[in-house]
Amino acid sequence: MKLKEIGEFEFIDRIREGCLVRPEGVLLAIGDDAAAFKLPDGEPVLVTTDLLVEGVHFLRNATSGFNLGYKALAVNLSDIAAMGGVANEAFVSIAVPPDCDLEFLEDLYKGMRDLAGRHGINLLGGDTTGSRTDLVINISVVGRAPAGRMLTRDAALPGDRIFATGHLGESRAGLHLILNHILPDTEDDSALVSAHILPHPSLSEGRFLAGQVGVHAAIDVSDGLLSDLGHILTASNVGARINREAVPVSPRLMRFCSRFGFNTVDYALAGGEDYVLIVTVAAKQVEALNRAYEGRFGKTLFDLGEITDTGKLEVVDSTGRIKSPAIEGWHHFRGELNGI
Amino acid sequence: MKLKEIGEFEFIDRIREGCLVRPEGVLLAIGDDAAAFKLPDGEPVLVTTDLLVEGVHFLRNATSGFNLGYKALAVNLSDIAAMGGVANEAFVSIAVPPDCDLEFLEDLYKGMRDLAGRHGINLLGGDTTGSRTDLVINISVVGRAPAGRMLTRDAALPGDRIFATGHLGESRAGLHLILNHILPDTEDDSALVSAHILPHPSLSEGRFLAGQVGVHAAIDVSDGLLSDLGHILTASNVGARINREAVPVSPRLMRFCSRFGFNTVDYALAGGEDYVLIVTVAAKQVEALNRAYEGRFGKTLFDLGEITDTGKLEVVDSTGRIKSPAIEGWHHFRGELNGI
Repeated sequence: MKLKEIGEFEFIDRIREGCLVRPEGVLLAIGDDAAAFKLPDGEPVLVTTDLLVEGVHFLRNATSGFNLGYKALAVNLSDIAAMGGVANEAFVSIAVPPDCDLEFLEDLYKGMRDLAGRHGINLLGGDTTGSRTDLVINISVVGRAPAGRMLTRDAALPGDRIFATGHLGESRAGLHLILNHILPDTEDDSALVSAHILPHPSLSEGRFLAGQVGVHAAIDVSDGLLSDLGHILTASNVGARINREAVPVSPRLMRFCSRFGFNTVDYALAGGEDYVLIVTVAAKQVEALNRAYEGRFGKTLFDLGEITDTGKLEVVDSTGRIKSPAIEGWHHFRGELNGI
Repeated sequence: MKLKEIGEFEFIDRIREGCLVRPEGVLLAIGDDAAAFKLPDGEPVLVTTDLLVEGVHFLRNATSGFNLGYKALAVNLSDIAAMGGVANEAFVSIAVPPDCDLEFLEDLYKGMRDLAGRHGINLLGGDTTGSRTDLVINISVVGRAPAGRMLTRDAALPGDRIFATGHLGESRAGLHLILNHILPDTEDDSALVSAHILPHPSLSEGRFLAGQVGVHAAIDVSDGLLSDLGHILTASNVGARINREAVPVSPRLMRFCSRFGFNTVDYALAGGEDYVLIVTVAAKQVEALNRAYEGRFGKTLFDLGEITDTGKLEVVDSTGRIKSPAIEGWHHFRGELNGI
């Protein structure tokens, strides 16, 4: 069935169920000119927004509606996570081409509601309209950050240690399998594909880190470690030295890279869409932070290197050789597919 | 010049100047994972969002970037106006096809900044990405409404009078001229085209009305009076009786309609994108409200008819004959151009 057969308003009726998972503070949800809600007094409001366009960010015939909806929301939640914030309300605009099935759209909202429900996030409004050829999805998320405890990009200081909250490169490997039509029939391949299509937004991790003494700057890895760390360096006016040996790669990624002949560390350094967090931490707080983090999450942070005052991004190999790599990553205007 | 020649980050640098017009309360503007700001304590947060797609909502070769940017923001501000709210921050996502000129994009941001500046609204963030063929713009606006003074669609009561804040049908007439390639070389035609491409978001009017005793429901006219009033009737579970004679049409629209052989009132009733406000008002407060409104704005409200308990939308002509019109308006999924 196509959307034009039921119209905008019946469509909204179909997808609105389950959108309001946390009614406290909500004054108006879907159905008026604007949504209205209250935030706890005095806490900063956070807003992030992401626009996904068919053929650029995803291939409609290569994804399920559910996975597309899930990931479209996940990337926004990851931005709130990178601020150390709490995500509260999501607003979804979609433009639907005539050939798009209603079932696909309902599945898309199911994917969004699934992830939203797990994090107590309301889908509180949006816009539904037509498109000539490409399916377009824009999600805005409104959240909050306790005053004075917001993680920004501009707070890194020379001497800070640089940590990642998880492994890098798995999402890129998953995309490689998808684009090469390699069916994930092993546990390894399934996990890699899953890392790409159903990424984990690190909201709890970000929230926890924002509450710890000595945590300075943060960002999420969406374009690739080197590219995203580059944003911290620019905003903080500092440099960084990363140890190649320390780049966190999973045994699974190592097996993948040896199978396809990639250098695992290079692969992980330029991998996008991992959605782990990168944080910089005052050196003297590292020990206490590591202990607290492990106590809370049962896993460790990965120490990648340190913030320097050189203004340069450097990668050091085991022999002590230093390279200033050209930063690779996703280029939205240059035709590559930022795959979902 | 094309966007890919300078890349996303230089583009953002080019358009960010003049985006922050009201720095108080803003903690983070363009340049981090999310924007962060503070709202006055305890006031409800309003969020509205609109998605515009080339070929559906506008024709890129039939508009200037400035006009497109201006109107894209205006339609969002109109939604905040219809809530009686104050608009604070705007978030702009754009997806840019390879053939789109950088000059057009810069002009688009100029149009947004022009309107934003007049209303003290910051452009605080967004997303910039690529598209295969169509230019796509999504704007989300965050505002606020003083607690307990928010105008919603569900508050109309039988016996309320129905008012419009301005003339209807001019925007539709302007679109007619544009689509028929009729150059606006008279004052009349220029004003009609201007009503369509540079509509006035009724923020002051909405704000004022929300503060008056007896003002119940409100909506802005985006899809056409009958269609939008229909939303109030559905949400409030009431009917309405509109007097044909009372539908506010300008002398300019009458001249336009007689020139092209349209019935002026029918034309105005089904016209979209006027962005005037429709409010329902307790009958006994009407006189005081009219006086106050005229004192504040130097113009009168137009009395269209009354809210009934029939559940039906009726239009009465001068002979007392009642019709329940089929509601016409814009249909986003049915192929018509929702012109900008």
